[in-house]
This record gives sequence, C-alpha cells and structure tokens, in this order.
Amino acid sequence: MVTRIGMFDSGVGGLTVLNAFRKAFPKADIHYVGDTLHMPYGDKSPEKIQEFSRQIARYLCSQGAELIVIACNSASSWAYQEVCDAAGPIPVLDVVRPVVRFLANSPQLTQVGLIGTRATIQSGIYPTLLKAAAPQIHVEALPTPLLAPLVEEAIELRELNRLLIAHYIHQLNTESIQALVLACTHYPVLQDIFVEVVGPNIQVLNPGEVLAEECRLNGMNFEGTGSLRCEITEYTQAFEKTAERLLGQPIQLKTVQLPA
Amino acid sequence: MVTRIGMFDSGVGGLTVLNAFRKAFPKADIHYVGDTLHMPYGDKSPEKIQEFSRQIARYLCSQGAELIVIACNSASSWAYQEVCDAAGPIPVLDVVRPVVRFLANSPQLTQVGLIGTRATIQSGIYPTLLKAAAPQIHVEALPTPLLAPLVEEAIELRELNRLLIAHYIHQLNTESIQALVLACTHYPVLQDIFVEVVGPNIQVLNPGEVLAEECRLNGMNFEGTGSLRCEITEYTQAFEKTAERLLGQPIQLKTVQLPA
Repeated sequence: MVTRIGMFDSGVGGLTVLNAFRKAFPKADIHYVGDTLHMPYGDKSPEKIQEFSRQIARYLCSQGAELIVIACNSASSWAYQEVCDAAGPIPVLDVVRPVVRFLANSPQLTQVGLIGTRATIQSGIYPTLLKAAAPQIHVEALPTPLLAPLVEEAIELRELNRLLIAHYIHQLNTESIQALVLACTHYPVLQDIFVEVVGPNIQVLNPGEVLAEECRLNGMNFEGTGSLRCEITEYTQAFEKTAERLLGQPIQLKTVQLPA
Repeated sequence: MVTRIGMFDSGVGGLTVLNAFRKAFPKADIHYVGDTLHMPYGDKSPEKIQEFSRQIARYLCSQGAELIVIACNSASSWAYQEVCDAAGPIPVLDVVRPVVRFLANSPQLTQVGLIGTRATIQSGIYPTLLKAAAPQIHVEALPTPLLAPLVEEAIELRELNRLLIAHYIHQLNTESIQALVLACTHYPVLQDIFVEVVGPNIQVLNPGEVLAEECRLNGMNFEGTGSLRCEITEYTQAFEKTAERLLGQPIQLKTVQLPA
C-alpha cells in the first residue's frame, strides 16, 4: 500500500491538488516540491519543462516517494513520459489524463471550454486525447497566460482578479459550453471567482479534485500519518501566503537546491 | 552623420522609445526588432538576456545600423557591455544611463521611486550608478513583474490596468517621492494611468523620452527619410495592436528568424 506521495508543480498551483488530496486522503504522507525558481512553467519551452520535471521526479523518488503526482498541467502536457521514465517502477499520476477520463465518462457534456497556460494549450494534449477517448466532445481552448502569474503573486484584489478572469472568459462561447476545465492547477485558487463569472449553468472543473476523486473511486487508500513536507526551490512570500490560505494552517517551508 | 538607428526590445515596450525618437527626430530611419519570441526579458536569467541581446545587436549591425539603441531596461541593466562588444565601433545608447544622468542633473530630486521588472530591479543598476553620479538621491525600488506581461497582452481594460498599477504604487512611499521612474519601457504604454494614480505632485519619467531629449540636447540629428522597418521574432496580434495604437498609424510587420 502506498503511503508516501511525491507531488510537484512549478509553484503554488499544485497546492490546489495537494489540498484536494489531503481532503480525500487525510492520512496520506505528502512530499511537495514547488519549483518556484523556475515558475511559471507555462511560458517555458517543452525542453525546459521536461528538464525541470525529470529533475524533480528523480529527487522525489530519491526521497522515498512511492507515487508521483504531477500537479501541473504544463508538466502533465509536455513531460508525462519523461517523469514516468525518471520514476522507473514508481507509478505516476498527472492532472490531464484524469480530466480526459472524467469528460469521456460524462455523456451529457459535448461542448467544453478549456483555459490554461500557453504551454498547455499549445501542446494540444486535451483535443488529442479527447479525440480518441470522447470524439463527441468539442473543446474550445484558450490560452490565459496572465492568470498563473497573477496567482503566483498572490495579489488578493478580488476585483482585479474578477476583471481579468471575465476578460478571458468572455472570449469563450459561454452560451454553448457546459463545462469549463481549469487546465492549470493555479486557477482553482480563484475558483469562487470563476464560478461567479461563468454562472450556475457551467460546471467548473478543478483538475486536482477530479484526480483525487478518481483515486478514491479506484479504491486507492493512503494509511500514513497525514504528514506534509513542503519544499520550494526559491523562497517567495507569495508561496507561503497562498499555501497557508489554501491549507488553512501555518506551513513549514524549506528551500532546497535540487541535484542536477 | 548617423541616419540609421537599430533599436530593440523584448517586445512592444521598446515602441515607447521608438515613439519618443520619432517625435524628436522625424527624419531618423529606424530598424526596430521586438524579440516577441523571448518576451518578456524581465523574468529571464542574466545569461539569457545577454545571449538574446548580443544576437539582436549583431543582426542590427549586419543590416546597416549606425547606432544601436537598447530600448529595454532589462537588457540595458544586464547586457549593455555585451551589446557594446557586439556592436564594435558602432555607438550604443541604452535607457538606464540617460535616466541616471537626468536624475543627477535634477538637484531638486532627492527621493525617487523606481519600478521595473524583476531582472532590472535585481540588477541593482540604478542604485549602483546613482550612488556614483548623485549620492544625494535615495531610490525606493520595487519589482512590478505583472505589468510588462499585461502590456504585452494589450488588455485594454482601463480599470484592470488601473487596479494593478495602484496595487503596486501603494507599496511605494508616495508621500515622500518626488519622481517615479518607469524603469521598464513597457510601462509608458500606460503612462496616463500612472499619472492619474500617482497624482500631480510626482513627476513620471518615461525613459524613452528622457533618452530622446538627451540626444536632442546633445545636438544629435538624423537626416534620413523617416522610414520604419519593424521586425518581430514571433507574430503576436498584441504587438501589432499596441504598435498601431502607439504610433498612430498602420504598421508593416515582418517576422524574422535571427541568425544564432
């Protein structure tokens, strides 16, 4: 039975996945790495995203992870295979494929909006995987590159965040879409604003919650002590602030230099 | 006499310098390169900024530039020497040193606010140069990393822009500063909002205008045909939109791949 999860993201975004996991599996022991030194991954080249992801996966394995969770859509889009290779026999979960399976298992959904970083959208991974798994679904994808940096900066000005989110959402055909995939793990930090902007008729999908729910439905269980080891590659106040807000408790942060 | 100016920036920001030059010297022939493929420089490493700047300077020289203008604060901060080396005998102007000289020649200024990208602020170039040139000036420097991406995206939502600018400006001691240096050439795109937010008692300095005015005072003159050749390394609609708005005329854009 797996107890120790190694989880990573470019920064604070993956904390929304961490949060969903801790809610679903309070006894899981989680080792989280936020690569704040290189955030955001969303405007990095595929090669860089692969290099950073490989490095972190190796580090997490070396520290005893029994399961790797890629808690970043840009890394899930571009570096899934690289992380699997680096993890060897250790299983790897990501945040793209569970959402694709969820959509494929939701026959009522035919029109889906999807927003993410430039890297995620340009990868074309959602349309590609959905074409095979659920060809009836039409995806309208929009890069929303300012949102992840906005979350990283932890600028808690609701009206500013609302204006930017509304600016992007209005570029989607909100009359016809039934669900909106927040295809960047940073975005659920602002989930309530998304829900407010898109209105009650559009389901807002948080990839971390979709992944945790899939794990629960698959009968996964984690019987550890519910510990959390949280490391970042560069200290930022914004990380600490967002982490404490999301997790609802003070957090012990350690800055680490990852072995090359 | 110099007629052909080679000018560059990571993206649209340098257009504020271009604009100031064209107003001061309508007959100058300008070859502008916006490195949209790598924008923004403000969160790149010094090594990357130096590599990109060197490459563009070489390209501009190979295309007949008789004067290079670094129309980017991040590149002026980190890559001035590299551009000089690449330009060889061709003179190089930047957007940091003229502002320092302007401040040093403004005895009424003792408290100055300065906002820019992370790269520019972390370089410490303004405090360093000012310490030598004008030790009486106290600089309060603040990185404002979301502003350049906001301008690059050409999100013309005045209220959104105003909220973000106000958020940053309120972190400065606006009671005591007499001038605010927009130490990123992107920021003057939003100059009227800065003026509105800081109020009438604080002088807002646009580095492009400071540079053009210094050139004019130094008796420089440009007797070309007032032509503009504008190239970018990756097409973006935002660039075209901002360029046409700033220059007040349609613009012919060419996408180029720079020789390595």
